[in-house]
Amino acid sequence: MTDNQTEKFENFSEWFDKVLLEAEIVDDRYPVKGFSVYRGWGYSIVKRIYQMLEEKLEATDHQPMQFPVVIPEDTFQKEEDHIEGFSTEVFWITHAGENELDRRLLLRPTSETAIYPMFKIWIRSHADLPLRMHQTCNVYRYETKATRPLFRGREFLWNEAHTAHVDFEDAERQVNVGVEAYRSVYDALGLSYLILKRPDFDKFAGAVYSLAFDTWNPDGKVNQIGTVHQLGENFAKAFELTYEDDDGNRAHASTTCYGMGMGRTLAATIAHHGDDNGLVLPPVVAPRQVVIVPIPFKGKEDLVSQYSNEVKAILIDAGFRVALDDGDRLRPGEKYYKWEMFGVPIRAELGPREANARAVTLVRRDTKEKKKVQLDDLVEEVTAMAAEIQANITARSRERLEGELADASSLEELKNRMDERRIVRVNWCGDPSCAFEIKDQVAGEVRGTLWERHEKPTGDCLVCGDGGKYIAYVSRTY
Amino acid sequence: MTDNQTEKFENFSEWFDKVLLEAEIVDDRYPVKGFSVYRGWGYSIVKRIYQMLEEKLEATDHQPMQFPVVIPEDTFQKEEDHIEGFSTEVFWITHAGENELDRRLLLRPTSETAIYPMFKIWIRSHADLPLRMHQTCNVYRYETKATRPLFRGREFLWNEAHTAHVDFEDAERQVNVGVEAYRSVYDALGLSYLILKRPDFDKFAGAVYSLAFDTWNPDGKVNQIGTVHQLGENFAKAFELTYEDDDGNRAHASTTCYGMGMGRTLAATIAHHGDDNGLVLPPVVAPRQVVIVPIPFKGKEDLVSQYSNEVKAILIDAGFRVALDDGDRLRPGEKYYKWEMFGVPIRAELGPREANARAVTLVRRDTKEKKKVQLDDLVEEVTAMAAEIQANITARSRERLEGELADASSLEELKNRMDERRIVRVNWCGDPSCAFEIKDQVAGEVRGTLWERHEKPTGDCLVCGDGGKYIAYVSRTY
Repeated sequence: MTDNQTEKFENFSEWFDKVLLEAEIVDDRYPVKGFSVYRGWGYSIVKRIYQMLEEKLEATDHQPMQFPVVIPEDTFQKEEDHIEGFSTEVFWITHAGENELDRRLLLRPTSETAIYPMFKIWIRSHADLPLRMHQTCNVYRYETKATRPLFRGREFLWNEAHTAHVDFEDAERQVNVGVEAYRSVYDALGLSYLILKRPDFDKFAGAVYSLAFDTWNPDGKVNQIGTVHQLGENFAKAFELTYEDDDGNRAHASTTCYGMGMGRTLAATIAHHGDDNGLVLPPVVAPRQVVIVPIPFKGKEDLVSQYSNEVKAILIDAGFRVALDDGDRLRPGEKYYKWEMFGVPIRAELGPREANARAVTLVRRDTKEKKKVQLDDLVEEVTAMAAEIQANITARSRERLEGELADASSLEELKNRMDERRIVRVNWCGDPSCAFEIKDQVAGEVRGTLWERHEKPTGDCLVCGDGGKYIAYVSRTY
Repeated sequence: MTDNQTEKFENFSEWFDKVLLEAEIVDDRYPVKGFSVYRGWGYSIVKRIYQMLEEKLEATDHQPMQFPVVIPEDTFQKEEDHIEGFSTEVFWITHAGENELDRRLLLRPTSETAIYPMFKIWIRSHADLPLRMHQTCNVYRYETKATRPLFRGREFLWNEAHTAHVDFEDAERQVNVGVEAYRSVYDALGLSYLILKRPDFDKFAGAVYSLAFDTWNPDGKVNQIGTVHQLGENFAKAFELTYEDDDGNRAHASTTCYGMGMGRTLAATIAHHGDDNGLVLPPVVAPRQVVIVPIPFKGKEDLVSQYSNEVKAILIDAGFRVALDDGDRLRPGEKYYKWEMFGVPIRAELGPREANARAVTLVRRDTKEKKKVQLDDLVEEVTAMAAEIQANITARSRERLEGELADASSLEELKNRMDERRIVRVNWCGDPSCAFEIKDQVAGEVRGTLWERHEKPTGDCLVCGDGGKYIAYVSRTY
């Protein structure tokens, strides 16, 4: 274990709960099971994450919209596979005020069935296509598995995009646009991930196929942070989503959808970069990028205070988000502890010595390295340091992913790799029954095959011994 | 009627519905009554409105948070007046999946009862105060009155802030902070309004007193766009919100809350500034501030196209939000019509003549005035024109408010003024029964008294003839 990251790898649960509490990320003491509160620091980070994504989506012609949270029962039931996939986990509204409702309403578990009836109204001819929308909202799933803040809640914040196209090929192009949008956000957060095509038995209810971004987690359970789905004409047929084509005929649209879980993306950001002292935030989403801690010295209070404010003004002018922690309730050491827990990328320590020398002592959150710089070079140095932090945490996350990957050529070997909490590559014939056998035998799941390139199997299926068709990735999962 | 605003004053309902539909603001064809969809253009505006407010709130130390949408029945019932005020209009979740829930959950009609149990955990000593949070979210009220998109829905988007303080006086200071934050947003939108202290019988359920921002509407019904409430110790007592004071004793906190309805604020922005051709948007929230319409000319297509892109790049570089409408499905006149409906503040017309002269023809949305400017002056001219538009629509809205105000000294006269759809000032003794009498007699409501300064009554109560204590504002209302 390098880089002061012992705790999170040795006891992830405790470490994670402590960080969520002390860094004021989420609070799960809300009096309804599976529902958590995003606190100030946590929500400030999440907001920056979804704003980055929204910007990216709007730059690629997705219109921001907001659809109702309630879906009528009859509309929800239009796509057969979809209702089958979700019906056991929806919340039902049955009454309002003193009245029983004529028909039950459910809280959206995802918004296809809210959105398609409106798409049907809006889309008339091919000139209305492609139609692309996105919304950041909460969705509701009555999870029966154990809930866990950020990873699995009964209410969770996400961004979902829905698009409609003239044909399957244009929807295929859109799948790529979705993947690239998500990739850009995860990359900005310094996260490493695999893009896997899920096996058919694990695809989104109603999809032709599903892609997923899976990231490593210190406890060895893979964390799915985003999914992109090709829906073909499945939903368009169920919702009669047709348009008039060039020849005046009615044709079914092809559709896609993709969703990024904000809680899980935040969880990955915390889990990949954090260390024994708490959060380590990528500068791009840190609510404060620099914290200035004045070092008081008797008789020099004014000098230090003035200089601190001068440094703050310079950094704010340069566009940095800055906190000046000049309260007198905590000693400097306690302030260091606090802001390290909050993951602020750079600390600036300022005492009389710095003030007299017109210098600033900078401390990097990720490596704890100190560097004394001249005030004249401050903006340049802080900019460079932020870039170095970003590069370092990104590289560290990627190295970890590489290290997690392993191969196995027998169930026995797979079991051993799973015990080491690895993500394991195996040869697979593609038969679901072999995947289920793996699940039964080793408590790991076939997560799918690499999407970006076809990986040639190196031998026969590890379960049945028939010809291997794919390299499948197997892991424990949230 | 000046300024091309006949339709909205003569037939507000039709005009408003047409604008909502054609400018793609909201769509109420969603298959659940009282639930509407924010479309792309509408949501882009609303997002800018709430982001302006969020920025203002965060600059005054409100932390952004997100609380669950569900509240357990028992928690909701802790504050007696509050439950009485809201119980007839909440949606109840009774089932999840196949199960009946142990205890019913309701969808928040407002979030006090979700937030106070957490404040109780977070607040221990006076060092934790003041505590200020805000969230932008949807709330749910089973309205029995007729619903109307943006004005009254069963789901509506708002921003709500909740604050806790050491005592009533500090909460009073916070009331002022809330008022100033709201004022700054409404002013940026060019809206005129009255800040009224609601009569006791019309205050927020559980409040000590309530302030409200009321704006005029073309149909003569006043539109409440925001409220600010002093809650004193009422909620703190119900939720046992105490802190340890300097002397080590437990004391009750004092709290405030305030909410800005995004739908109603958008409705006011549309209603105040719009005209017979559609929306007229304040530049600050216009999703596109300038639309470039190329004027095609046979044989000069390349020249015009190149020049249009050059103009676009200059404006984008200068920080403007720009659309270049260079599609060939619509003729220029049809494009003018479309972008006028969408309320884009400035149109730039570019043909071969403009290209050859290195000039741009600008057209103001609010007055339709044309101005030909040189390319070298473009950024300066567009900046100035945006400021003029803002000043003009603001002044126009304020004049209208002044013109709406009237006095009445008898019920008969009040009735006549109400028929003219005015906002009427009357002398009032302060007795609720006189206010109810007014409501019965003239179909107008006592909305309250001016908050910013005490207005001296000019005579006896218009109903009972006893001594007048207040100048009350009476109007029809949404």
